Amino acid sequence: MNKILIANRGEIALRIMRSAREMGIKTVAVFSDADRNALHVRYADESVHIGPSASNQSYLVIEKIINAALSTGADAIHPGYGFLSENAEFARKVKQAGITLIGPSPESMEVMGDKLSAKAAAKKYNIPLVPGSDGAISDEKEAEKIAQEIGFPILIKASAGGGGKGMRVVEHAGELEEQMHRAISEAKSAFGDGSVFIERYVASPRHIEFQILGDTHGNIVHLFERECSVQRRHQKVIEEAPSAILTPEIREKMGQCAVDVAKACNYVGAGTVEFILDEKLNFYFLEMNTRLQVEHPVTEMITGIDLVKEQIKVARGEALSFKQEDLKINGHAIELRVYAEDPNNNFLPDIGKLKKYKIPKGPGVRVDDGFEQGMDIPIYYDPMIAKLITHGENRTIAIDRMLRAIKDYRIFGIETTLGFGRFVLKHEAFASGNFDTHFVKKYFNGKLEEEYQNDEAEIAALVAVKAFEKDKKRIADNAISKSGYSSWRMRSRI
Amino acid sequence: MNKILIANRGEIALRIMRSAREMGIKTVAVFSDADRNALHVRYADESVHIGPSASNQSYLVIEKIINAALSTGADAIHPGYGFLSENAEFARKVKQAGITLIGPSPESMEVMGDKLSAKAAAKKYNIPLVPGSDGAISDEKEAEKIAQEIGFPILIKASAGGGGKGMRVVEHAGELEEQMHRAISEAKSAFGDGSVFIERYVASPRHIEFQILGDTHGNIVHLFERECSVQRRHQKVIEEAPSAILTPEIREKMGQCAVDVAKACNYVGAGTVEFILDEKLNFYFLEMNTRLQVEHPVTEMITGIDLVKEQIKVARGEALSFKQEDLKINGHAIELRVYAEDPNNNFLPDIGKLKKYKIPKGPGVRVDDGFEQGMDIPIYYDPMIAKLITHGENRTIAIDRMLRAIKDYRIFGIETTLGFGRFVLKHEAFASGNFDTHFVKKYFNGKLEEEYQNDEAEIAALVAVKAFEKDKKRIADNAISKSGYSSWRMRSRI
Repeated sequence: MNKILIANRGEIALRIMRSAREMGIKTVAVFSDADRNALHVRYADESVHIGPSASNQSYLVIEKIINAALSTGADAIHPGYGFLSENAEFARKVKQAGITLIGPSPESMEVMGDKLSAKAAAKKYNIPLVPGSDGAISDEKEAEKIAQEIGFPILIKASAGGGGKGMRVVEHAGELEEQMHRAISEAKSAFGDGSVFIERYVASPRHIEFQILGDTHGNIVHLFERECSVQRRHQKVIEEAPSAILTPEIREKMGQCAVDVAKACNYVGAGTVEFILDEKLNFYFLEMNTRLQVEHPVTEMITGIDLVKEQIKVARGEALSFKQEDLKINGHAIELRVYAEDPNNNFLPDIGKLKKYKIPKGPGVRVDDGFEQGMDIPIYYDPMIAKLITHGENRTIAIDRMLRAIKDYRIFGIETTLGFGRFVLKHEAFASGNFDTHFVKKYFNGKLEEEYQNDEAEIAALVAVKAFEKDKKRIADNAISKSGYSSWRMRSRI
Repeated sequence: MNKILIANRGEIALRIMRSAREMGIKTVAVFSDADRNALHVRYADESVHIGPSASNQSYLVIEKIINAALSTGADAIHPGYGFLSENAEFARKVKQAGITLIGPSPESMEVMGDKLSAKAAAKKYNIPLVPGSDGAISDEKEAEKIAQEIGFPILIKASAGGGGKGMRVVEHAGELEEQMHRAISEAKSAFGDGSVFIERYVASPRHIEFQILGDTHGNIVHLFERECSVQRRHQKVIEEAPSAILTPEIREKMGQCAVDVAKACNYVGAGTVEFILDEKLNFYFLEMNTRLQVEHPVTEMITGIDLVKEQIKVARGEALSFKQEDLKINGHAIELRVYAEDPNNNFLPDIGKLKKYKIPKGPGVRVDDGFEQGMDIPIYYDPMIAKLITHGENRTIAIDRMLRAIKDYRIFGIETTLGFGRFVLKHEAFASGNFDTHFVKKYFNGKLEEEYQNDEAEIAALVAVKAFEKDKKRIADNAISKSGYSSWRMRSRI
């Protein structure tokens, strides 16, 4: 492997290129109009323009990516995450073009890409699934029988549904008949199909996922778990490894299940097996992501293993250089996704220029980002500015370090999730490890109190900046004096 | 401990403040005229101006430091390294002022501050010293007797000497008489004192030092070694942990000796015991540094322990939270000191403005620095811009990562040791681990070949920058095209 085309952008494109560079492999960037001056383009050894800003005219166009690889002589493609990374058709066409895809086979993608076939594959290996009806039912008697088997509370879900429509929680057997009626008629009117599923309702689910690595020689290992229960708008915002709740025994059991899921689809490369975990530490297979995960750095921090390099080595046909028993958890790592979003406005994306942009430094702090000061956050793509990762000897130290790093981060000119991160990390439920995927719904009322948004001095600095911009010297001076800093010092902050 | 004054500047002041901030402890910066806008001043919670730029009128004035602490209510002082960090008088006066010094006792400093008393203390614990005469001799007969005992080659050193004057290597017994004559008369004429020492000549010495941590409860552990054999002008420039040459057996032996040296002076806090190691892996105690070391980050990277936090905890009277057997080496770490120096001009310090300054990022890369783009490197202090540290699963990975990080570092406007670092790391002797403190003398001819100084594209970029500055568009365009990059891309690099 001499040259890798990275079919992605932003922080993950840079992340992949760094590992390639360390391995002495050349890199090719692709870029849309909006990314003409992006850092991943500057970092690569070569770059190819692939069209307009909209992803469906650039990063998502299979032919453009393959042509860019062929025209630059790239012998491999790394898809990153998102975009074409889990597209089996893309994987197949890359192979047909004689190029190595750094990822699993199209067949593995297909098995795991469909939830039903994924569950069917998992079932063969006796992987626990959320107990429930095997298929759609429309009969109340059947529902009653299954409900008695799996136990209450249960969840009724419309087969054709999505987004919570036609979904009902049933607490007791006495409610079942009525709720089944309602769910069926709701499903009929909403989707034109009255068939429903029944499964056990997990009231307090935690999202636990296992990192998998498989090679072409049949070796598969797991690199322990990541907990990603803190989510907003059903998307992860804070991840950590290890989970605060897993015992070594459950970790071993879940890890073995994750390896089995990977075996079930002959998995090669880096992948992630997702589970939900209930209050009694029962776990159930959810799905498998057949690509590198956004939150992979926390696993790198606790294992010392460079997952991108492992992906490349496996794609070159090398056998894994370690066995399961060689892998150890070293300390604790947390990742905060720094999004250009306004936590006080339902996490709506914010766009604009990074007027001031300074990253935190120091031991145990890693920042994977794709921007620098003065750059614009484009509206066309995921509004993630950076991933802020901290590592420490234990969870408390990792949290303290994250709070320090959030304080040291300077992003002016755009709203971010930094203050929201501070809110979560300082919350008693997070500190104690006693939380689930409902964290945000339960504890965040939609408005960040000032104490989480900014430090006192920072608030004063922001006021001073704004006043300076409007040439209101007296307000600026007042804000400076309020901050408790000398004016020359505050000016140097601005 | 509520508030720590950091009696230092630059990267180490920032390094200490970050740990304090993570522990919820307030910080006070001190600064001279030249450091008015320095980053450590901006980072601290408070700051005190302590005088003119020259260190002997600011950072070295004991009273000014203590007054700054008293006036801000700081209950502890961290001296960093250099400046007053090994000054027993300072330590004593800090104590008298009712302030905690984050460092060892004045008595420990005094024992280890004097080479003769340090060796005497070490001898009591049977720590190996370079074999030689116990004190000064001036008699050839005595010289002959001692030389026979310790074996040839031997080194004759003037008692009053320094800087290599009056120093002679004697290979065989036959040369001894004549060389003694010469050394004595040289010493007499140079220093007015003809007395000399004799010790075994270590032809190929390696500099190995052990990190020590002691608490006030009598616990002392070592955190393994650092090898610092690559030096220029007798100063370290590249350090690594672990050493490429130590066997586990010798590591254990040396570690025990290092602990014993610390015991010999009732050591509390972080300290470093330096040894020289000969070709046969015999080791000899050299001296002990009673402070945090510049190169402490490599130890942090392989142990996961924050040494500054440990210093603070020990100074608060806490017992160490780990025992020797809890400590493990995890991977390999290398540090390159990025000095504002010109390797092609005998490493003479270079001063000026950091026109462009971008640090490398990514997994396993840490940069401890004290500057940002647009800042000047002041002439008054040590010309170190940053410490670039990389960590990897093994030595090869750490080296590859360092080479990548050097390539990613952008420092325009000032000469640095980055290219020299590349030269060393690519050298066969370094890669094989077969080198000693004569590395630079043996292998570096005083001129860095172009391949080490910059990447081809970087050279073109530099040419382009200079041409642009002088408004020579055609030369700039030529350089851009030579670099193989498109002109808009090169312009964005500039």
